[in-house]
Amino acid sequence: MAERRVSIVGGSGYTGGELLRLLLFHPRVTLVQVTSERFAGKPVYRVHPNLRGVTQARFCSLAELEPCDTLFLCLPHGKSMEQMPRFQRLAGNIIDLSGDFRLATPEAYQKWYGRPHLYPELLGEFVYGIPELYRRNIQQARYVSGAGCNATAVILALYPLFQQQLVYPERTVVEVKGGSSEGGNSPSEASHHPERNGVVRSYKPTGHRHIGEIEQTLGHPVHLSATALGIVRGILATCHVFLKQPLDEKSIWRIYRNAYGSEPFIRMVKERKGIYRLPEPKLLVGSNFCDIGFERDAGGNRLVVISAMDNLMKGAAGQAVQAFNIMHRFPETLGLEFPGLHPV
Amino acid sequence: MAERRVSIVGGSGYTGGELLRLLLFHPRVTLVQVTSERFAGKPVYRVHPNLRGVTQARFCSLAELEPCDTLFLCLPHGKSMEQMPRFQRLAGNIIDLSGDFRLATPEAYQKWYGRPHLYPELLGEFVYGIPELYRRNIQQARYVSGAGCNATAVILALYPLFQQQLVYPERTVVEVKGGSSEGGNSPSEASHHPERNGVVRSYKPTGHRHIGEIEQTLGHPVHLSATALGIVRGILATCHVFLKQPLDEKSIWRIYRNAYGSEPFIRMVKERKGIYRLPEPKLLVGSNFCDIGFERDAGGNRLVVISAMDNLMKGAAGQAVQAFNIMHRFPETLGLEFPGLHPV
Amino acid sequence: MAERRVSIVGGSGYTGGELLRLLLFHPRVTLVQVTSERFAGKPVYRVHPNLRGVTQARFCSLAELEPCDTLFLCLPHGKSMEQMPRFQRLAGNIIDLSGDFRLATPEAYQKWYGRPHLYPELLGEFVYGIPELYRRNIQQARYVSGAGCNATAVILALYPLFQQQLVYPERTVVEVKGGSSEGGNSPSEASHHPERNGVVRSYKPTGHRHIGEIEQTLGHPVHLSATALGIVRGILATCHVFLKQPLDEKSIWRIYRNAYGSEPFIRMVKERKGIYRLPEPKLLVGSNFCDIGFERDAGGNRLVVISAMDNLMKGAAGQAVQAFNIMHRFPETLGLEFPGLHPV
Amino acid sequence: MAERRVSIVGGSGYTGGELLRLLLFHPRVTLVQVTSERFAGKPVYRVHPNLRGVTQARFCSLAELEPCDTLFLCLPHGKSMEQMPRFQRLAGNIIDLSGDFRLATPEAYQKWYGRPHLYPELLGEFVYGIPELYRRNIQQARYVSGAGCNATAVILALYPLFQQQLVYPERTVVEVKGGSSEGGNSPSEASHHPERNGVVRSYKPTGHRHIGEIEQTLGHPVHLSATALGIVRGILATCHVFLKQPLDEKSIWRIYRNAYGSEPFIRMVKERKGIYRLPEPKLLVGSNFCDIGFERDAGGNRLVVISAMDNLMKGAAGQAVQAFNIMHRFPETLGLEFPGLHPV
Repeated sequence: MAERRVSIVGGSGYTGGELLRLLLFHPRVTLVQVTSERFAGKPVYRVHPNLRGVTQARFCSLAELEPCDTLFLCLPHGKSMEQMPRFQRLAGNIIDLSGDFRLATPEAYQKWYGRPHLYPELLGEFVYGIPELYRRNIQQARYVSGAGCNATAVILALYPLFQQQLVYPERTVVEVKGGSSEGGNSPSEASHHPERNGVVRSYKPTGHRHIGEIEQTLGHPVHLSATALGIVRGILATCHVFLKQPLDEKSIWRIYRNAYGSEPFIRMVKERKGIYRLPEPKLLVGSNFCDIGFERDAGGNRLVVISAMDNLMKGAAGQAVQAFNIMHRFPETLGLEFPGLHPV
Repeated sequence: MAERRVSIVGGSGYTGGELLRLLLFHPRVTLVQVTSERFAGKPVYRVHPNLRGVTQARFCSLAELEPCDTLFLCLPHGKSMEQMPRFQRLAGNIIDLSGDFRLATPEAYQKWYGRPHLYPELLGEFVYGIPELYRRNIQQARYVSGAGCNATAVILALYPLFQQQLVYPERTVVEVKGGSSEGGNSPSEASHHPERNGVVRSYKPTGHRHIGEIEQTLGHPVHLSATALGIVRGILATCHVFLKQPLDEKSIWRIYRNAYGSEPFIRMVKERKGIYRLPEPKLLVGSNFCDIGFERDAGGNRLVVISAMDNLMKGAAGQAVQAFNIMHRFPETLGLEFPGLHPV
Repeated sequence: MAERRVSIVGGSGYTGGELLRLLLFHPRVTLVQVTSERFAGKPVYRVHPNLRGVTQARFCSLAELEPCDTLFLCLPHGKSMEQMPRFQRLAGNIIDLSGDFRLATPEAYQKWYGRPHLYPELLGEFVYGIPELYRRNIQQARYVSGAGCNATAVILALYPLFQQQLVYPERTVVEVKGGSSEGGNSPSEASHHPERNGVVRSYKPTGHRHIGEIEQTLGHPVHLSATALGIVRGILATCHVFLKQPLDEKSIWRIYRNAYGSEPFIRMVKERKGIYRLPEPKLLVGSNFCDIGFERDAGGNRLVVISAMDNLMKGAAGQAVQAFNIMHRFPETLGLEFPGLHPV
Repeated sequence: MAERRVSIVGGSGYTGGELLRLLLFHPRVTLVQVTSERFAGKPVYRVHPNLRGVTQARFCSLAELEPCDTLFLCLPHGKSMEQMPRFQRLAGNIIDLSGDFRLATPEAYQKWYGRPHLYPELLGEFVYGIPELYRRNIQQARYVSGAGCNATAVILALYPLFQQQLVYPERTVVEVKGGSSEGGNSPSEASHHPERNGVVRSYKPTGHRHIGEIEQTLGHPVHLSATALGIVRGILATCHVFLKQPLDEKSIWRIYRNAYGSEPFIRMVKERKGIYRLPEPKLLVGSNFCDIGFERDAGGNRLVVISAMDNLMKGAAGQAVQAFNIMHRFPETLGLEFPGLHPV
């Protein structure tokens, strides 16, 4: 199968850097261009020091962007849509990692992003990029929108239960805990090391923007709180759901096995003993896995479903490459084989 | 007012060390003895290196324990009750920091600790040691049982709402996130640094033992999950409650002000902007404060109440000294003035 | 002895915050004003959240500064000297924590700070504020300059050996390792959490500015490298010195005991076993101690002297209060009794 | 070229786990067996949770070890040599990652390991496994001994200067700073998270065992101190050398370029600006790179050479696979392409 000529727009951020790393080692990709207005002309390794000696590529400016097969957009929220018509002229396939095309309606966009969408007519052309749910749509899509990192963690944890209507959706409470790379690479008071180190900061107890994506996908919003931790990478989503009818452990296993049993990037993690009984994000740093586990409350109908992932991988760049592989009928795991490190 | 002659039983652990630090600087305390079977004869600073140059005290063995006014017991769960009759002969006042006398009935003890209580007839003699709820009882008590750290964080966050029956208790979902000092000072695989560093580990998604204390105090159990983090000290409890009737922000403020407005160790933390808008445990390291804040969900009747504390201080040694001050009619903040550090 | 009326100029930074915390609890100090141009009018706890509920003080602007007994200056390097004549009119005693008056000659200032000093005639009026070396001078001084944090750690480690000319000064190699609070509270790319977390960054292998202070005090420069770590507070200085003549362990002990045996804030730390054998900065967080230890190289004439401290305490605010106590004949440890925490 | 049938002896530790990860993804390796006495019969992912879903391999006991082409030995120091004759009968090629065959003489072994070597006659059969220095010997070797992690970092930093006799060897002072995975996976008081987190602990100021390897390789010992940090992976070696004659920057560059210009795993890192000017271990986590940089002291003949690596990769498992590739004439970077992550 032929190689794909690929460019990255907005390649100086953390997601852009991870995408660059993945695509440089992807056996079916020729990397054409990487743009950055701030660093145009500079070698990419100045910004992504792990790529020193790995590539001599330099950033170019957006104005210099040439036609290619697939464009990955890693621009800030609101910036992708501004130039979307131009991007569509430049490339047959687009994978947008911003939030601009995640929500299916202009009303939802207005609600969660607080401004009108510039190209509401394009919203319907983007497939929501969680392969485990929308693989077939992605296969046939020209345009894919990467899902939000927290949204991906919550949706993958809850989808099998919600789809089969086994839980009271309005009672679902989720707490996502995440690392500092979620906030991007711009320094701020909140990201200043003496302030962020060792923090357990409830930064978004209500009203998190990703609720919009979750509601759209699961058919119901959830009660979501987000807590910032002093780690760099990783998300742990703890999802408390209340079952309509009691389910024994085997039945729950079966539901998840049916949903994800053949998924290459979902691992069920539920051991009886040892310290790795349930999903842990630190084991997933650099990997594209989403680990999912659960524990039933012996005293009631509560079920705690736990999912973990690397927010820059399965939560962003990795999932984007997974979608790219699907779009182009490449093996889905191509370039995404790294299993994570231990210890780390 | 006279000084109190005080001894610590089981002083080589983390709680014992903090208690030792607090009592050494307490202006009304004469420290008589500190026991440790493992380190008997050795200077306490060998185990608690922050006390080097601060005290020349040495550990003695439990067998050498002499009569004194007040005994602080920092023995492992199950060990306090074994010798309680002896301790009662040695001291008029006892503050037990283990879990042995927290639950009021032998049935509850059996349920949560998995074994029968040795002296069920003594359970009623111990006052549950959260001063904000039981100050008067503590004033008149001979024996106090220190509350569990997670239980204290959850109870202080929820008590005003539960007491006034403003919420659906059975829908309450709580996630407590805590540091590694909660686990004590015995090395284990789970506490091995390469395994624990940077961890976000769902170690007790259901069935946490502190639910027993919470149920006993609030009148209803809560859905509690506990997550272990790679910090050393600190607890953040995120409590999702569902209001029976809508309450505006001012009303919620009023409820908490009424409950805690004159409490020396509870601070309401709820700013409109800045990075310290809500409680954060890292700001409380070494202090006896419990910070409480909340956020209403604009889209519904959910309220997220957040509490933070230092698990070794307000969650253990600090709260024990607070109870001690109350028992002896000392100013409640005596020896507990340290406000915490920033940055840290 | 009477209280002292004290103000802090430039109180919104980390050093200013620590000073504020110390002075608020100092039994002989009445805090008059705290200035901050950026936060004038705002409560200090907005910037120093550990002081919430502890003080209702608000920042005022520098223009509003009133006369007082003692002024603590926590302005950025270069800003203290600009207004020094005005400060001298406002207060009889000044303790300047910037680098502006640490070096005794305008030539040295020009060399290490890269610009001419504005008031070279004032340089001689400031005593270099390390009490262990210059206690008598501080007692009689009107003006004291706080020493640099790394300089303090190195000078205290090496002074006894250099003073007695026991080592080859030109062969001395020192590596200081420090936390992120050394860099102040302004966010930057280097302090951005994802970049700083877990870092071991050789940020100043040669040419560190504090060499100037060290040379001035010890009579000879040292080879100094500085490495930035992913901790917030703390300095460890590892000093490799080469002895002119062999010295056995007892002799070295005696030298340090003679120098520091009666010092309230210096602890010799050198155990034969256990994990706290040598100084460790994490045990000193919040304390004013400087811990010093050493190990002789069995195979030669090298001696490794190790010192640890909290850069914001003994390295800045704590040492300034220590000097303040000396200037005013207060007990030297007043307000500086906090021993540090364990674990932390 | 044919595949190699490979087994790992002692595969439950951190080095064994990394080796397992590398060999599972190595395109020319068939993994035959992995031994662990403690975990025999259990799936390897129980111990190395990053390998869950990646392999179904199980540990076997050492007694079950079968013949294969190449044996990697990851046994504790002292255990490799005990059974070396048996291992030699089982495999034509052996790569031993313990310290047992690093030193060339029984005298050196006795000196640094404190006991007599069991098979001194075998010492000469092992090539010291740093490819950058001994590539040709490794190509022709049957047996290779992996170099110590700290020794590798120091030797690679200093070799070009020592080889050309440009420095005074006896004046060289080195400080290595390393993470907790260096200590292996057995819990201890020193590795207990509350004690190790955030630590800057001078654990071996003198007498570090790796000095023996350094002396053997560079022809002269160095003054080496080792400091333990609260990170998990990574080494930074700061090497202070004193030049016999002044060398300008270009000359030093040339020396390193000549030595390492074509090395696939050594990167010279020396930028004029930015935050990644010099080597940093956190950028190397999971990679086999050794980054080297330097800074000249403007005021003298001191040169600071800085090297960084991942102690489990270039310092252990990665370098072992690199040697394996060389022994078997595979491309040297095979299976070692992972470039490290950013941010992390």
